[in-house]
Amino acid sequence: MLSTMQDVPLLVTRILQHGMTIHGKSQVTTWTGEPEPHRRSFAEVGARAAQLASALRDELGVQQDDRVATLMWNNAEHVEAYFAIPCMGAVLHTLNLRLPPEQLVFIVNHAADRVVVANGTLLPLLVPLLPHLPTVEHVVVSGVGDRSGLEALAEERGFRVHDYEELLAGRPQTYDWPELDERQAAAMCYTSGTTGDPKGVVYSHRSIYLHSMQVNMTESMGLTDRDTTLVVVPQFHVNAWGLPHATFMTGINMLMPDRFLQPAPLAEMIEGEKPTHAAAVPTIWQGLLAEVTARPRDLSSMKQVTIGGSACPPALMRAYDELGVRLCHAWGMTETSPLGTMAHPPAGLTAEEEWPYRVTQGRFPAGVEARLIGPGGERLPWDGTSAGELEVRGTWIAAAYYNGVDAEPLRPEDKFSADGWLKTGDVGVISPDGFLTLTDRAKDVIKSGGEWISSQELENALMAHPEVAEAAVVAVPDDKWGERPLATVVLKEGASAGYTDLRAFLAQSIAKWQLPERWALIEAVPKTSVGKFDKKVIRQQYAEGVLDVTTLD
Amino acid sequence: MLSTMQDVPLLVTRILQHGMTIHGKSQVTTWTGEPEPHRRSFAEVGARAAQLASALRDELGVQQDDRVATLMWNNAEHVEAYFAIPCMGAVLHTLNLRLPPEQLVFIVNHAADRVVVANGTLLPLLVPLLPHLPTVEHVVVSGVGDRSGLEALAEERGFRVHDYEELLAGRPQTYDWPELDERQAAAMCYTSGTTGDPKGVVYSHRSIYLHSMQVNMTESMGLTDRDTTLVVVPQFHVNAWGLPHATFMTGINMLMPDRFLQPAPLAEMIEGEKPTHAAAVPTIWQGLLAEVTARPRDLSSMKQVTIGGSACPPALMRAYDELGVRLCHAWGMTETSPLGTMAHPPAGLTAEEEWPYRVTQGRFPAGVEARLIGPGGERLPWDGTSAGELEVRGTWIAAAYYNGVDAEPLRPEDKFSADGWLKTGDVGVISPDGFLTLTDRAKDVIKSGGEWISSQELENALMAHPEVAEAAVVAVPDDKWGERPLATVVLKEGASAGYTDLRAFLAQSIAKWQLPERWALIEAVPKTSVGKFDKKVIRQQYAEGVLDVTTLD
Repeated sequence: MLSTMQDVPLLVTRILQHGMTIHGKSQVTTWTGEPEPHRRSFAEVGARAAQLASALRDELGVQQDDRVATLMWNNAEHVEAYFAIPCMGAVLHTLNLRLPPEQLVFIVNHAADRVVVANGTLLPLLVPLLPHLPTVEHVVVSGVGDRSGLEALAEERGFRVHDYEELLAGRPQTYDWPELDERQAAAMCYTSGTTGDPKGVVYSHRSIYLHSMQVNMTESMGLTDRDTTLVVVPQFHVNAWGLPHATFMTGINMLMPDRFLQPAPLAEMIEGEKPTHAAAVPTIWQGLLAEVTARPRDLSSMKQVTIGGSACPPALMRAYDELGVRLCHAWGMTETSPLGTMAHPPAGLTAEEEWPYRVTQGRFPAGVEARLIGPGGERLPWDGTSAGELEVRGTWIAAAYYNGVDAEPLRPEDKFSADGWLKTGDVGVISPDGFLTLTDRAKDVIKSGGEWISSQELENALMAHPEVAEAAVVAVPDDKWGERPLATVVLKEGASAGYTDLRAFLAQSIAKWQLPERWALIEAVPKTSVGKFDKKVIRQQYAEGVLDVTTLD
Repeated sequence: MLSTMQDVPLLVTRILQHGMTIHGKSQVTTWTGEPEPHRRSFAEVGARAAQLASALRDELGVQQDDRVATLMWNNAEHVEAYFAIPCMGAVLHTLNLRLPPEQLVFIVNHAADRVVVANGTLLPLLVPLLPHLPTVEHVVVSGVGDRSGLEALAEERGFRVHDYEELLAGRPQTYDWPELDERQAAAMCYTSGTTGDPKGVVYSHRSIYLHSMQVNMTESMGLTDRDTTLVVVPQFHVNAWGLPHATFMTGINMLMPDRFLQPAPLAEMIEGEKPTHAAAVPTIWQGLLAEVTARPRDLSSMKQVTIGGSACPPALMRAYDELGVRLCHAWGMTETSPLGTMAHPPAGLTAEEEWPYRVTQGRFPAGVEARLIGPGGERLPWDGTSAGELEVRGTWIAAAYYNGVDAEPLRPEDKFSADGWLKTGDVGVISPDGFLTLTDRAKDVIKSGGEWISSQELENALMAHPEVAEAAVVAVPDDKWGERPLATVVLKEGASAGYTDLRAFLAQSIAKWQLPERWALIEAVPKTSVGKFDKKVIRQQYAEGVLDVTTLD
């Protein structure tokens, strides 16, 4: 028996229409490096999104399902593209400007993008790629930047170049948005892919709509129209964790840093614009902390900072606690839109009692079902000690990759279970009350003598040492044990701790059999394009004998 | 082009599974009239819901789509029924115990309920109806109450009687919940119907799921697992405004008053259990205010009280402000699940500046699209002055009634527009920033000389008079103007205000041509079964000459 409810699809279009009317006065503020940032109301962003959609359709010939790429920083124009492209029925493809050039070429060709909308400041990155991008017919340039190289190339290769503002000028400020199927593709994002080719995740209108509701819920970011969120996490990184959609859904003001992602301008924009919330990966907060330690700034407007992308060193959370800024752990991935968990402690605890919950990845919302699968494929209990691979299921979680599930070296069964759950590749435990603690990437777990050692637990323990700036631990082959941990450490400036000091420090919290024998001091931990530790590089350096390794008895 | 997201249905089952695991320790506390209330955890409620589903299937033979009715107060067992019945694929039909007996008979027969789950204390209401309910094969009785009459009748009429606890005892605490279509019927509720037969609204799993997310959002009730909500609004009244589902979705504790809805026990349970939130119609808060004025109680735990069902007199909101309890206006109806709007003022205002926003019905969330339709069918602007009938559209809004759109006197076109929007029957204005102010029911508007006079505006102005307890204004026929307002007034005890005083008071805020000429003092304003002013009765009393009407010059 069916219900008598209206059959209304969940569309990004509804979010746009709602934001630009009910919350029309809310603002997207974009940092410009000038004394005054640029401010545009949601109503204006909505009107300009309509103009952009008209231009794409009437001038560039974009049709339903066409992929339109963006190579842009976080700014108002990128928000306009976020709404115009999906709402007209096309597919927004955000390009990660930190990917190596060959990967960018791969993903534009794989997605067969017809249009690229780019910030002028990113043309030095885009122009050298264009000769290798045969599907691109149009490049739309927004903002400052030298366009001469682009225009010369356009003539030679036969694509067209448009100025973003000229394209919009004079077009109607409304658009007859089509009524779409809620399962229609709205946006796509390729995983940064530390192994093999990047893989495309295609979000639907439905998944974005539901994810936006979740982002706004109190158990997630708890945003209201009284708040301003500093969106540091890039719009090319899993849709800036859903914030551009979530903000339009409830009228939260957005503060967009554009290309000014260095600690000094970030500190300046927080002090000047007083955001209540922010979202970024740990390395950003690490850098900001160093900045405000050297040159104190008032960060106290920030009530809640969502931190994700990789696990946050507890010492960093403590340091921000002292500044009156609460970092809140979240876990997710490109394949989960990304909101998977968020670490709000349960009620009625003291600050110290909250601590063990705050350092977990957090609890799952109702929209994310979770299970732990043991090494033998068995389902493990939520007992806080049984460690297994996390699998998740839900409306905003991927079931496949775009035209690429069978691309090497990935086989579909590596990422998706037979019954349709996503295999996250993360290993961890879940407490009886549903708090997830990830201990490692499945591929980073150290398998020593038939037992698992968590590389991440060792890293966190090391980074709690006052003289350690960063530490990464990887598995290296060992004749006797199969694998053993190698600790690579970046010391703070002027630090003098030796390996035996560090091992003694570790021994205070880590079981003896898990303590690393192999140690190396390094200049910096290699990072991926989105700021995660790139352990693949360390393993390779070790294999090639490039690292200066000391082995303790 | 379709997305690569998982195709996971939005089911009430997911809410149940989530609440009983992740929030298993959260509590449903039921008032018993004894010194200690009854407490049951979400985990226990979930296990018992599984037992109830087993019993309904294996013992009573309930199958997919069968309607299972409840005639119950707000209590833990009713929450169990709320999950067991929809999650097993059957349809929960909540019976409004305040309906006149003939309407109850009508709706049970119209829905063809096979089972009725009833509180023992409600058997005196149910037993006399049973001879007229041929589709009912089973009556399940929960809690205290004399069952002898029921058992005698069962033998005579051939239905079976079960004890709720005996039915559950020993059954498995898990159930293999079926994977349903999200558009499957989950629950139904008949409108109280001041005119014509009651009309059934059938909610889907999808509509309940999305509505639950909205209830929890900060722009609505903003609930967290640190909160406790006092659910005064009955579970038979639009699913208690969605609270039993919303609480399981985010782990909010529920405080359930069972049959103890009188001001004194409500004050006692608030003082004793310290709920942070509550939800009820204005008359409940009116009664509670009188109670705590006479016998002071500490209500200060309550951060936010959602008030709906009918417009809240501003004077009542002011009185609670002084007690430190914030009443927050919401608007909705059975056909809207019910959340339509909620009145949180915009940011950055002083308490006095917030006031004009707080007395509106509030703003629409993204899930509710709204338009105003003028007397000639034209679409009106959101300018804060153009008054029209409100029409709404969204995933949790009805498109039709259950097997009854063509029931007299309702024609489908009276309630649903040709393009599928719900005609609310409410008349109002919308401000440019989306705040809805309802001025009247379409049928209560006074059409005087080609202009509209709002009966509700007159009532609110009258109820602001210090000697007025209640006031209802209705349209009565007038030879010269077509219709004119009749003011019926309930004075406070010991009050001495005369009609000319009241009219002079009104003239301070109301245009002269709108001031009523006809006045009558009455004992109490007649109310419908859910506590709304029943103006039909007043109009009828006037037509029959029963009212003692004075006409001023």
